[in-house]
Amino acid sequence: MKIRLKFKPVEYKNNVLIIIDQTKLPTKLIYRKISDYKTLGNAIKRLEVRGAPLLGIVAAYGIVLAFNNFKSENFNIFYSKFKKVSQFLKSTRPTAINLFYAINRIEKIILTNKDKKVSQIKKIIKSEAEKIYKEDLELSYKIGLNGAKLIKDGYTILTHCNAGGLATSGLGTALACMFIAKMQNKKFKVYVDETRPLLQGARLTTWELLKWGIDTTLICDNMAAFAIRKKKINLIIVGADRIVKNGDTANKIGTYNLAILANYHKIPFYIAAPSTTFDFSIQKGDDIPIEERGSKEVTQGFGKKIAPNNVKTFTPAFDITPAKLITGFITEKGILKPPFNKSFKKLILT
Amino acid sequence: MKIRLKFKPVEYKNNVLIIIDQTKLPTKLIYRKISDYKTLGNAIKRLEVRGAPLLGIVAAYGIVLAFNNFKSENFNIFYSKFKKVSQFLKSTRPTAINLFYAINRIEKIILTNKDKKVSQIKKIIKSEAEKIYKEDLELSYKIGLNGAKLIKDGYTILTHCNAGGLATSGLGTALACMFIAKMQNKKFKVYVDETRPLLQGARLTTWELLKWGIDTTLICDNMAAFAIRKKKINLIIVGADRIVKNGDTANKIGTYNLAILANYHKIPFYIAAPSTTFDFSIQKGDDIPIEERGSKEVTQGFGKKIAPNNVKTFTPAFDITPAKLITGFITEKGILKPPFNKSFKKLILT
Repeated sequence: MKIRLKFKPVEYKNNVLIIIDQTKLPTKLIYRKISDYKTLGNAIKRLEVRGAPLLGIVAAYGIVLAFNNFKSENFNIFYSKFKKVSQFLKSTRPTAINLFYAINRIEKIILTNKDKKVSQIKKIIKSEAEKIYKEDLELSYKIGLNGAKLIKDGYTILTHCNAGGLATSGLGTALACMFIAKMQNKKFKVYVDETRPLLQGARLTTWELLKWGIDTTLICDNMAAFAIRKKKINLIIVGADRIVKNGDTANKIGTYNLAILANYHKIPFYIAAPSTTFDFSIQKGDDIPIEERGSKEVTQGFGKKIAPNNVKTFTPAFDITPAKLITGFITEKGILKPPFNKSFKKLILT
Repeated sequence: MKIRLKFKPVEYKNNVLIIIDQTKLPTKLIYRKISDYKTLGNAIKRLEVRGAPLLGIVAAYGIVLAFNNFKSENFNIFYSKFKKVSQFLKSTRPTAINLFYAINRIEKIILTNKDKKVSQIKKIIKSEAEKIYKEDLELSYKIGLNGAKLIKDGYTILTHCNAGGLATSGLGTALACMFIAKMQNKKFKVYVDETRPLLQGARLTTWELLKWGIDTTLICDNMAAFAIRKKKINLIIVGADRIVKNGDTANKIGTYNLAILANYHKIPFYIAAPSTTFDFSIQKGDDIPIEERGSKEVTQGFGKKIAPNNVKTFTPAFDITPAKLITGFITEKGILKPPFNKSFKKLILT
């Protein structure tokens, strides 16, 4: 099967990183050229570029950008700048592990090659970034193939936030399963949670699904329970920002809510994610750092004031879904089912 | 205990009905004078005036308005106009029973007095509308007294939509419990779901709670599950639009979702509503008519386009919470617990 991507969420060309400014979708498709790592960091903070796997890819390219005009051949100066740059990029968003994974991978390859000339190390970093990008395309495709097996003719699927091409190198994780199922000519419908506060479901996921010609229905987040019951939803698939050793999973706020609904209605609840999203250095979900966003995302969503001035807010960008509510993880290595302490071994051993 | 209302959501004065245009809150507090029933009907459809008990009150006054300039003393002409007016008012919003309750109550009193002069019947209608209004104040107060017993010092409560003064004659149902608890000097916090699509929680409930000096935190609907776990919410109280014979309850979309969350987290889930919101002519929730609203409330909420043009939507304004998920009903006659086929008898017999 050959996949033609509907758009390129990230591209590195002529020493410049080109991203889609995702805050402008779906009304405008704007490609933005970024030539320095600080601009990239701010674009990450503002969520112009987002999605766990994509954050890993752009972070790797961010390091490439940081050294484009670096002339010294002194390794210590080079490495100290690398530490500064990686510190900054790691500070942008704390929850998604892929960002840390990619930077740590670059650091490892720097240290492995520290006896080489700096100009040569720079080339190695660039080819490692490209490798991370290409690997992600491959991972997405395999996740899609594995997840598509869960989608049967006549199914209605529910998803949350955006775990699509825009969150990855171009194909996605949760949505990759649907795209591959569509290529396999399966007939199914998808319901999409709008995903407050920043509406990645309404703005990004529906946009992608419609590009693939998939029957797509948008709902508000609080309609999910009623939609599951009334529209007979068969399956929930979402992405992940970090999956820890016991299977607890951080993902967009609202995911834990959906997992409870799936449990109550006895429908399967799957997380689709590449092995790069697993973090076995953390034992359980409560230890995952959860980013809290500014209160204006809630009180002044959509540029309009929707709440009194003096109201307090609670604005976690992510929540933790306990492993016991997760039917399985759709990974590039197959679908991992409980007990996860056994099935997760597949991610390490192969 | 003496209650001073913080505002008057409805007032009938000099042959004019004065409402607060609730679509303008919280940024503007605008009182609107309405002198004919058609304008009122449109204000109901546009949700300028909303909330199950308040819909009952304004519907009764709507009939008063319809006859303000009616001069004939012919009962048949009078009654045929009444049927036309009540048909129109009943067509505005299908789910909340109070609207139907009030109109049917006016019809009953018309038929009981049909041998009287029409001018006299008009006076009887007006005093019946006033009675419905005053009774609702009394019901709210009693609901508040009963519900306040559930609120203990140190509690954190979660509510959804607006079941406050703005949904009633001025005190509320779910919020009345909190207002009375506040008057009793209890210390507690309230979390409020913003309640998409029309944000009655963000716009109206936080506004009311802050007026009462209650510690209020606004969240997006999809944060409720994580807030219950992380902020240790002790109790959920919401209102109702219609409660049927077996205890199944129609209320603002998202209520069913919350009831499932309460069940999963083993916290009590209460519905606060006056006996006027119970409809024993319907046996079970699936038979309650559920209003679907226009898709723009989802795709263009907040006056801004947030989804692609060609996306489908599912936009129920209400959902049905099955009785088995409801811990109890806070009514003016006390707190009714399961089995509801026994406890509901209290509503009829006394």
